[in-house]
Amino acid sequence: MAEDTMTDIFSKKHPLLITNVMADGKTVDIFVDETGTIAALGEGERRRYRNDAEFIIDGDGAIALPGLVNTHTHAAMTLLRGYADDMILQDWLTQKIWPLEAHLTADDVYQGTRLACLEMIRSGTTAFNDMYFFMGDAARAVDESGIRAVLSYGFIDLFNAEKREKECKATEDLAAHVRSLDNPRIKAAVGPHAIYTVSEEGLEWCAEFAQHKKIPIHIHLSETEQEVRDCIERYGKRPAALLDQCRILTPRTIAAHCCWVDEAECALLGKRGVHVSHNPVSNMKLATNRAMPCHWLADAGANVCLGTDGSASNNNLDMFREAKTAALLQKFYWNNPTILPAHEALAMATDHGAKALGFGTGKLAAGAPADIVLVATRAACNTPLHTASSNLVYSCSGAAVETTICDGRVLMLEHEIPGEATILKEAARAARDLVSRAREG
Amino acid sequence: MAEDTMTDIFSKKHPLLITNVMADGKTVDIFVDETGTIAALGEGERRRYRNDAEFIIDGDGAIALPGLVNTHTHAAMTLLRGYADDMILQDWLTQKIWPLEAHLTADDVYQGTRLACLEMIRSGTTAFNDMYFFMGDAARAVDESGIRAVLSYGFIDLFNAEKREKECKATEDLAAHVRSLDNPRIKAAVGPHAIYTVSEEGLEWCAEFAQHKKIPIHIHLSETEQEVRDCIERYGKRPAALLDQCRILTPRTIAAHCCWVDEAECALLGKRGVHVSHNPVSNMKLATNRAMPCHWLADAGANVCLGTDGSASNNNLDMFREAKTAALLQKFYWNNPTILPAHEALAMATDHGAKALGFGTGKLAAGAPADIVLVATRAACNTPLHTASSNLVYSCSGAAVETTICDGRVLMLEHEIPGEATILKEAARAARDLVSRAREG
Repeated sequence: MAEDTMTDIFSKKHPLLITNVMADGKTVDIFVDETGTIAALGEGERRRYRNDAEFIIDGDGAIALPGLVNTHTHAAMTLLRGYADDMILQDWLTQKIWPLEAHLTADDVYQGTRLACLEMIRSGTTAFNDMYFFMGDAARAVDESGIRAVLSYGFIDLFNAEKREKECKATEDLAAHVRSLDNPRIKAAVGPHAIYTVSEEGLEWCAEFAQHKKIPIHIHLSETEQEVRDCIERYGKRPAALLDQCRILTPRTIAAHCCWVDEAECALLGKRGVHVSHNPVSNMKLATNRAMPCHWLADAGANVCLGTDGSASNNNLDMFREAKTAALLQKFYWNNPTILPAHEALAMATDHGAKALGFGTGKLAAGAPADIVLVATRAACNTPLHTASSNLVYSCSGAAVETTICDGRVLMLEHEIPGEATILKEAARAARDLVSRAREG
Repeated sequence: MAEDTMTDIFSKKHPLLITNVMADGKTVDIFVDETGTIAALGEGERRRYRNDAEFIIDGDGAIALPGLVNTHTHAAMTLLRGYADDMILQDWLTQKIWPLEAHLTADDVYQGTRLACLEMIRSGTTAFNDMYFFMGDAARAVDESGIRAVLSYGFIDLFNAEKREKECKATEDLAAHVRSLDNPRIKAAVGPHAIYTVSEEGLEWCAEFAQHKKIPIHIHLSETEQEVRDCIERYGKRPAALLDQCRILTPRTIAAHCCWVDEAECALLGKRGVHVSHNPVSNMKLATNRAMPCHWLADAGANVCLGTDGSASNNNLDMFREAKTAALLQKFYWNNPTILPAHEALAMATDHGAKALGFGTGKLAAGAPADIVLVATRAACNTPLHTASSNLVYSCSGAAVETTICDGRVLMLEHEIPGEATILKEAARAARDLVSRAREG
């Protein structure tokens, strides 16, 4: 393909014909129409749609998957990747992360989120659930990147009424700003950070605002044992019960971590239809000492999905690697090699995540939005190819993704992403400057 | 670089100048002489060696590392990648793995080992410790690939004197065959499989043969709790004590897994100067229910290194990913986020592994063999670059390796490996045929 043709394919949505890919074990062609919708998927569709396509992508036997969905991250923390590791959670936060974050600017969040979106596109993720600061700037980065995001401002009132008012205002502002963008790829959410940083009044306000606006709630829940102990001491109940009392547990709620939920809390989360985001890499790295009870939660009816957490505690955004670590950790911690088999781990990273974020993605089928990633099969990680789901989860990483399409627009084609060098360079500069500012004081 | 020049660089060792790479935090040039030795490494060396080099590789700011060393694998099991997963260890072995292995041919082992070497070259591994069958054919694959290996025949006498004689013969034959190859990149070792598959007489014979030939011993040790329980019941002592009684524990011994060793066993392994190979991915996948006590072993003086195990229980050979999982599992299982920091995990994958295999590799310094890998820094996984060891372990994978050099010969240049497509195709065919033969009975 000539250079200018390549540039052109990235510029906007075009009717696309993707030939010779494997989907659900069959070799098919996929036709994506000019609205970004999968218009047809099946054997031999190339003959029917050859003349309607503006571009034809030869899949060359690649595995086609719905775009992966990262249900818990702090995207702009890419700038902090590798800044501090291997520390006790509290020291890490108070000595390293928070002092650096105090110097974060709106432009830093834009640059960090751009880098995060680039990394997600490269590793096949087309939608993510974000919580951070300067979220208008995060929205700009997401808009430009071409992927999807649910954006929440991290609401932290520290049990202080004055601060609470500011947090309510920031939450309202973000919702209004995102509405004004009128971009179907971007949604606002309410982001009460956690029960140890937000008062009951704050939680109640968040619940009410989210209910009123019909938007998602994104919260950290029971990441550490300390959080559970302190909650019982402070409120005389466990964290999920407290959140339920504040009406935070809804079918629009995504609760991250959930390492320390007990069986009764799992039942409650299931009953309320909550989406729970498992973050195994971050939990292992920070030594949470317990793994999310995925099987209890799934049995109770909660939607168990997957997230990477921020790049400061992972330190990447590769959802293929997260799915593998989830499968490994569940087997190891719960002492049963048969739990969370490959196909379930893959479902967590795709359709379960999509269900949580509500963009209508997560399946490759006629009528669905064209969030499609192509994973190379002519690669060592897919050789031999006895079982596709096993190779995808246990053998491959996001590096095996060669083409990423979101909402019908080609964002990466055969590993090529336009503008990548500039994004890397500017993010590296922003990270260096941030550290310099923090050193100076 | 023109196509024919590219082919030429791969053909044999050449005097090489590698410019503009980061090693130990400094930007340096590396000159490799025609014997495959690092002749010079330092700032500005390009001026001194420009005229001596037949090829100049522009490192473009890449991180230069010694080639990674995989100290426990069964290379040819790449053919079984994804054939069966998510099962109880005993069912997995008896219902899936062993029935398939019963149909393995010498050519299968050649094809599977070729695929493994390709995968290792791609992910920056230049030496590995192997145990399997048809090891003459494995040696042929290693020889052709250009990397290094210690090869052992999996000695399994099942407590039967007749079978023992056959295993002794196979072990002697491999040692003689490897000696006849006279290839400094390939060593023979003795491979008593484990205490539950090899009699005391067998273990003693292996110890004596290894001592006589001055070659390494490669064994599985205390992978499961069952192994420890059965050993105590059968022999009235724990596995390490049994091995010590049979004189298996030596400074030439590599013991894989060691999940269930107690503190006294750690002291014994340290005292005997044993190399212990941590295999965290395999251990998690098969739910061993305990992680190797790396800190006890290191404190006792054992050399703690890293291995992927075979591709049937991992399911890849990526030592960067193994190093991350090691750091995560150690923190999580031993409930301390400060243990096994990134630089130590990286050392396990490089110089500790090199020490175990004894090829003299593992450091980038003048006089050392030129086993060098270049990791791209113009990539999201290395952006920003606050701390190289953190990015290498926690953020990157083997996919970030762009160039791999072993013994002074370029095996991969800017992600290009000559002959890759053929190796993938032939290994895929061999795997399909193997499964067909097993189905037919």
